[in-house]
Amino acid sequence: MSAAPAFALVDWGTTSFRAWATAADGTVLGERRAPDGLVTAGPKGFGRVLEEHLAALGVPAGVPAVLCGMVGSRTGWVEASYLDAPVGLDDLAARATAITHESRPVFVLPGIAQRTEAEPDVMRGEETQLLGVVAEGFRTGLVCMPGTHSKWVRLQEGVVEGFSTFMTGELFQMLRANSILAQAVQTEAAPSANDPAFEAGVRHALDEPALVTNRLFQVRAGWLLQGASPQSGLARLSGTLIGLEVAGAIARHDAANAPVALMGSGPIVALYERALTLAGLASPRRLDADACVRHGLLAAARLLFASKDSGR
Amino acid sequence: MSAAPAFALVDWGTTSFRAWATAADGTVLGERRAPDGLVTAGPKGFGRVLEEHLAALGVPAGVPAVLCGMVGSRTGWVEASYLDAPVGLDDLAARATAITHESRPVFVLPGIAQRTEAEPDVMRGEETQLLGVVAEGFRTGLVCMPGTHSKWVRLQEGVVEGFSTFMTGELFQMLRANSILAQAVQTEAAPSANDPAFEAGVRHALDEPALVTNRLFQVRAGWLLQGASPQSGLARLSGTLIGLEVAGAIARHDAANAPVALMGSGPIVALYERALTLAGLASPRRLDADACVRHGLLAAARLLFASKDSGR
Repeated sequence: MSAAPAFALVDWGTTSFRAWATAADGTVLGERRAPDGLVTAGPKGFGRVLEEHLAALGVPAGVPAVLCGMVGSRTGWVEASYLDAPVGLDDLAARATAITHESRPVFVLPGIAQRTEAEPDVMRGEETQLLGVVAEGFRTGLVCMPGTHSKWVRLQEGVVEGFSTFMTGELFQMLRANSILAQAVQTEAAPSANDPAFEAGVRHALDEPALVTNRLFQVRAGWLLQGASPQSGLARLSGTLIGLEVAGAIARHDAANAPVALMGSGPIVALYERALTLAGLASPRRLDADACVRHGLLAAARLLFASKDSGR
Repeated sequence: MSAAPAFALVDWGTTSFRAWATAADGTVLGERRAPDGLVTAGPKGFGRVLEEHLAALGVPAGVPAVLCGMVGSRTGWVEASYLDAPVGLDDLAARATAITHESRPVFVLPGIAQRTEAEPDVMRGEETQLLGVVAEGFRTGLVCMPGTHSKWVRLQEGVVEGFSTFMTGELFQMLRANSILAQAVQTEAAPSANDPAFEAGVRHALDEPALVTNRLFQVRAGWLLQGASPQSGLARLSGTLIGLEVAGAIARHDAANAPVALMGSGPIVALYERALTLAGLASPRRLDADACVRHGLLAAARLLFASKDSGR
């Protein structure tokens, strides 16, 4: 490393651990990924796991660490209480939870809760990505964040006004692995955005969302009766669930009339881009999920430690 | 037994075995239920399992047996090819598959396939219940058959014109047991049709089906943020999925403008009745699922063996 590490930035989820060492200007000095999520890190001890990874990254004691994700949940290292939406993303740093830890200052960023009677919702981890989205200059519009529990977030000048979670990714995995559809979608390959079955799934869900659990069963029936391939079955399953999510986002957030940013990594981005196009939405701004969480953690670290740095 | 058994009637599914011994006039002389579905009966031998149960029922060799259900699938005793819809239910007996079995004549009733390009679908077992529905005098209208894979069937003068499967029951079980919702719905009690959360779930799904995977996540968020009880969470989950199915049946089969029969057994009937009422449908005719399958098997047995009986 040429520059000295100024911050350790950690995205710590249920099943994964990612850390970056950065210079004060944000330059990435090192990165580390491990399957040390809450499930395995809890029993080992969060402090110990953190120090092992930071030692491997060459981050000396005393360098502050900023954490986000499920590590701040009730089953994590410390519970970082939710902020209530609507909330400005700058508040994430101001209301971070300090952890008593001998090696260095450690802060955990809070999640965000939407406590309206009609639409309760929560996020933990995505709020930090959103801070990165704002840091990238997307301050007003809708942010689509695909995942196990996809989020659609309404931003207004850097304020999270409201959001909705859709169980798209979890349903996809459950139906793929453990349902009557399993045989009909049994393939290692990822679904393709160019597969006509993906497009058909999206269109059906957009046109007639009420029929979606029937469309899902047709994945099996098409395989039984029409010899549909598992590859096309998987694409149809994926298209049906993503199409339903996009239909829901249009209904709830007027997605057709707002600038949309699509934040993701890997093959899922192409699937969502195709679904958004099929729904008649304008091309979304693409944002990389990994970069956003890192930028969000960095922005929070700067807010948290700026005054201390300037006082040195 | 006072009368001599004339028929052995068997509903043989993936995980369950049910048999009735009946007199020629349909009087039930004995009933037997066992967990000897395909999964366990396959390895033991279908013929042996059948004879054990019929011996216990006091059905002598030579008395014919009529079977329906997954026993006629590719993984069952013998594959009984699907009939193609539209199809008259009298054809079930005429096109039954005979099994070579030394102790008695054995016939397996076929399932029904809907081979249209746009809406492939299959049933196996329900067709026999439908024969019972027709035998009870419901010959024209929509039959709602709740279950793991619920069916909605359009009947016209005893002809199955078309049908749709909805994955309602399977999704309910998967989400209840193995999803992020599990904690929020963890209760042994069955969901109640009178729970306001059930009604809210149904109404939301009817009003905005596109938002259903968001409504599902709200079951967890309501538990986290609003202290919603697992009992009300389970009712909301159930209402959401049943409401979506009813919305789909209205969209596909114009359920609001047809006589509807609701065929089921146990607590699920009250849930569907409530959902149908909330959707503005007229009170359905209620039919008992167990009685329907028995009556269907009996009707098929009479058609199959009437000529032989009269020739004795």
